[in-house]
Amino acid sequence: MIIENNDETKAKDLSAIMVIFGGTGDLTHRKLIPALYNLVHDNLLSENFAIVTIGRKTKTNEEYKNEILVSLKQYSRNKIEDNVLEKLNNILYYYELDFTKVDGYKSLKDYLCNLDEQYKTNGNRLFYLAVAPQYFETIVESLSLNNLAPGEKGSKKLVIEKPFGKDLKTAKKLNESLLKVFGEKEIYRIDHYLGKEMIQNIMVLRFCNPIFESLWSNKYIDNIQITLSEQYGVGSRAGYYENSGALRDMIQNHITQILSLVAMEPPVNLKTESIRSEKLKVIHAIEEFTPESLRDDVVFGQYGKGFIDGQPVQGYRDEDMVLPQSNTETFVALKFHINNFRWAGTPFYVRTGKRLSTQAAQIVIQFKSFPDILYFKDRIQEPNLLVIQIQPKVGVFFQFNTKDFTTLEDIVPTKMETSHVAEMQGNTPEAYERLIFDALRGDATLFTRWDELEASWTIADQIIAHREKSKLIFPNYDSGTMGPVKAFELLARDGKKWWTI
Amino acid sequence: MIIENNDETKAKDLSAIMVIFGGTGDLTHRKLIPALYNLVHDNLLSENFAIVTIGRKTKTNEEYKNEILVSLKQYSRNKIEDNVLEKLNNILYYYELDFTKVDGYKSLKDYLCNLDEQYKTNGNRLFYLAVAPQYFETIVESLSLNNLAPGEKGSKKLVIEKPFGKDLKTAKKLNESLLKVFGEKEIYRIDHYLGKEMIQNIMVLRFCNPIFESLWSNKYIDNIQITLSEQYGVGSRAGYYENSGALRDMIQNHITQILSLVAMEPPVNLKTESIRSEKLKVIHAIEEFTPESLRDDVVFGQYGKGFIDGQPVQGYRDEDMVLPQSNTETFVALKFHINNFRWAGTPFYVRTGKRLSTQAAQIVIQFKSFPDILYFKDRIQEPNLLVIQIQPKVGVFFQFNTKDFTTLEDIVPTKMETSHVAEMQGNTPEAYERLIFDALRGDATLFTRWDELEASWTIADQIIAHREKSKLIFPNYDSGTMGPVKAFELLARDGKKWWTI
Repeated sequence: MIIENNDETKAKDLSAIMVIFGGTGDLTHRKLIPALYNLVHDNLLSENFAIVTIGRKTKTNEEYKNEILVSLKQYSRNKIEDNVLEKLNNILYYYELDFTKVDGYKSLKDYLCNLDEQYKTNGNRLFYLAVAPQYFETIVESLSLNNLAPGEKGSKKLVIEKPFGKDLKTAKKLNESLLKVFGEKEIYRIDHYLGKEMIQNIMVLRFCNPIFESLWSNKYIDNIQITLSEQYGVGSRAGYYENSGALRDMIQNHITQILSLVAMEPPVNLKTESIRSEKLKVIHAIEEFTPESLRDDVVFGQYGKGFIDGQPVQGYRDEDMVLPQSNTETFVALKFHINNFRWAGTPFYVRTGKRLSTQAAQIVIQFKSFPDILYFKDRIQEPNLLVIQIQPKVGVFFQFNTKDFTTLEDIVPTKMETSHVAEMQGNTPEAYERLIFDALRGDATLFTRWDELEASWTIADQIIAHREKSKLIFPNYDSGTMGPVKAFELLARDGKKWWTI
Repeated sequence: MIIENNDETKAKDLSAIMVIFGGTGDLTHRKLIPALYNLVHDNLLSENFAIVTIGRKTKTNEEYKNEILVSLKQYSRNKIEDNVLEKLNNILYYYELDFTKVDGYKSLKDYLCNLDEQYKTNGNRLFYLAVAPQYFETIVESLSLNNLAPGEKGSKKLVIEKPFGKDLKTAKKLNESLLKVFGEKEIYRIDHYLGKEMIQNIMVLRFCNPIFESLWSNKYIDNIQITLSEQYGVGSRAGYYENSGALRDMIQNHITQILSLVAMEPPVNLKTESIRSEKLKVIHAIEEFTPESLRDDVVFGQYGKGFIDGQPVQGYRDEDMVLPQSNTETFVALKFHINNFRWAGTPFYVRTGKRLSTQAAQIVIQFKSFPDILYFKDRIQEPNLLVIQIQPKVGVFFQFNTKDFTTLEDIVPTKMETSHVAEMQGNTPEAYERLIFDALRGDATLFTRWDELEASWTIADQIIAHREKSKLIFPNYDSGTMGPVKAFELLARDGKKWWTI
């Protein structure tokens, strides 16, 4: 998201010590450190900035830096250059601490204060909780008890990763415990999808292009489809996933966020709260499900065995750490109605799943067709499509009809794609770069506000309750397909189909 | 133009003898014979079809075929293949005749009747007048006097090339003389621009794409620009050009035709007369010029010396056959207003000229910009552009705004082009292929109806009269520029600019 005229964030002090809890974990190695490396590479960090990664194990800074170098080489989008690496190493510190034990925080505070002096960071701190959510409360409480929390000199920010609860009730409880220590404006709830370039581009596409905005309503749009499909199975995440499922893992957060960016009214300005308030209005406008619509418009799936890229893969129930009778859904498709003047009558179909045939995140805008007149009196009419490709392709795709130049009379759908697709692949800034940078400069636009979360949990809870009452016969789709038959029927019933571009 | 449900033309008898007057001329060598070769190549001609090329000189069929082979090799879009050439040669006849002498037509008739027998063409004839317009009347009269004209067995068609007169009066006179012999529906007035693929595509783009048609009005379109620019000078055509000038040569016909396709209302069906009638309505809706608008909105130019692609070229007045004080215009730019509900308030800027910096025919649709809000509060707003590229590029170009992925906050205009541009160049069917084929099957959609011509001459006459009264100071632009300064001021005065894509 492009921020403009945003007095809240401009010319902000970017100085801080970033404290990463879970400094030896997967997220830190794969995402956070590579993102920080690239921020150093792109010269986006303040000179008054340092990173402290916290881990339970005893190791020297040197050992830690050697470990992360391995990850950097694997995960950084920019090649590792010696001078950049040196700059990163100069601001990177490993700190041994069992963060579950409140007594360790006292010396952490002293350590941070020393670094404060050294880096002139004025007590500004960004606490990044790259740990399992059951530790959030403990850590936040310990920070508070040891005068590391807001109230002390300097800004204090808290960045947390999903899941934010497993339903509205637990989310509220978690939130309340955070709010005891941090203010809502100091809490940055990461939805890494929002950091992706093409997600930020949704607002630009809509509000910087009169031709798109003029057509952006139920008057011209037949339906909108959001697909987040993965070829991966649950992998090593079954422990978490068994308690989550696709609905909590993808719909409640990423898809709801994308939906709200696509459907929102133009905000009055580009300030964070203006944008978030418009997004919230969309979620509030989502039509409540009825027993009938829950039955007809929501499809759950779980993958059985099958083939991905020609290779046999096992079913979900055979995965490590998954119960043999697990009823966890690995696929959800559903139809949302947004009951406002702009969207009433234009369905939003969303689907997400694991072990699907394609790895893709995309938004398809299908425009309304003409009546079957003139050229379409005895010709099939292919609709106009605008596709926002989020990943792995990054770009805009557009399908329209032209004369087939090789024949006298044929009309063919013609495809245009932005060159970004080819050019940008591989070197688009990673979501985490953007998100860390934004958190540092205090721009919360790409983070989820509590009331958005609350509203999306309200919807998700309704579906979860339905799922728990439903008699699900799992597995109901083969790995390597695009999900259960019912997901296709969902659109076919409306005379539509999923587009896979 | 794609023809559909067109009962008039479907399943028509394509058998005919095509008689080309001017069989040794430039047009026949460069365009007609290559087009016929490619129609043979694409298997589009009837088995009952033959070509008679008429020339003054004595030569054998063999000699003629050897001559045209040289041209074919140079001008055919498809490579010359022996078997295709043989097929063409088998239906090609050279016939010696001084077409200014009526007494030669009697034996021409006998000759054609013999071929009729041989090719079973049922007396169907397509007379193609590839000769200077002063001969049209003589030829048509001679055809009539020798029972070669309508009234005899079989269909008789007359294809004529521009210029159709040099003003309304002469055009009317010419037309009346043709109408003495041929019916309006038998006369095919060629505007070779209408045969170009992208011109035919205008209707498809508009009427097969809801997103374009929804935006196709003064509500969404700021202005429309039609540019037909040539790098060539007058070359060997000065004899003709001195009596014509850019207005008669390009505006009165090609540009008016393109304009009417871009601006027309949707026809009720795809029948020839439905389409032509809608085009005619556009020409009728063009606002009459006033003395003020003639002064302000019409710009004439004549090229002086300069550089094309780095090479020095001479001015128009120094060209062969051009008078040293010639006031013939080699450039025209002007602003049309179309006073109907769809277009009032959206100006149509057109320009055409010789010795300009680029060789291009294109239509630029500039969409209205947003007010300067949100992202454009302190950023320059680049408009959305849709460009129909007619030649030398053939395709659709589209400019819209996206986030610049390489920076955090920039917005950049992004360009999309159809792949046609690359793929089709060099092997798009030539205009003449389409036009000859359409004339054979009796589809007059891509030809100009008399009332269209009449209406466009009415407008042109007004401008010509103005030019003749004006004190023109020529030359007023250097070769290799985009025309006189006034052509730029024409748009600048309206706060707009010419787009060169």
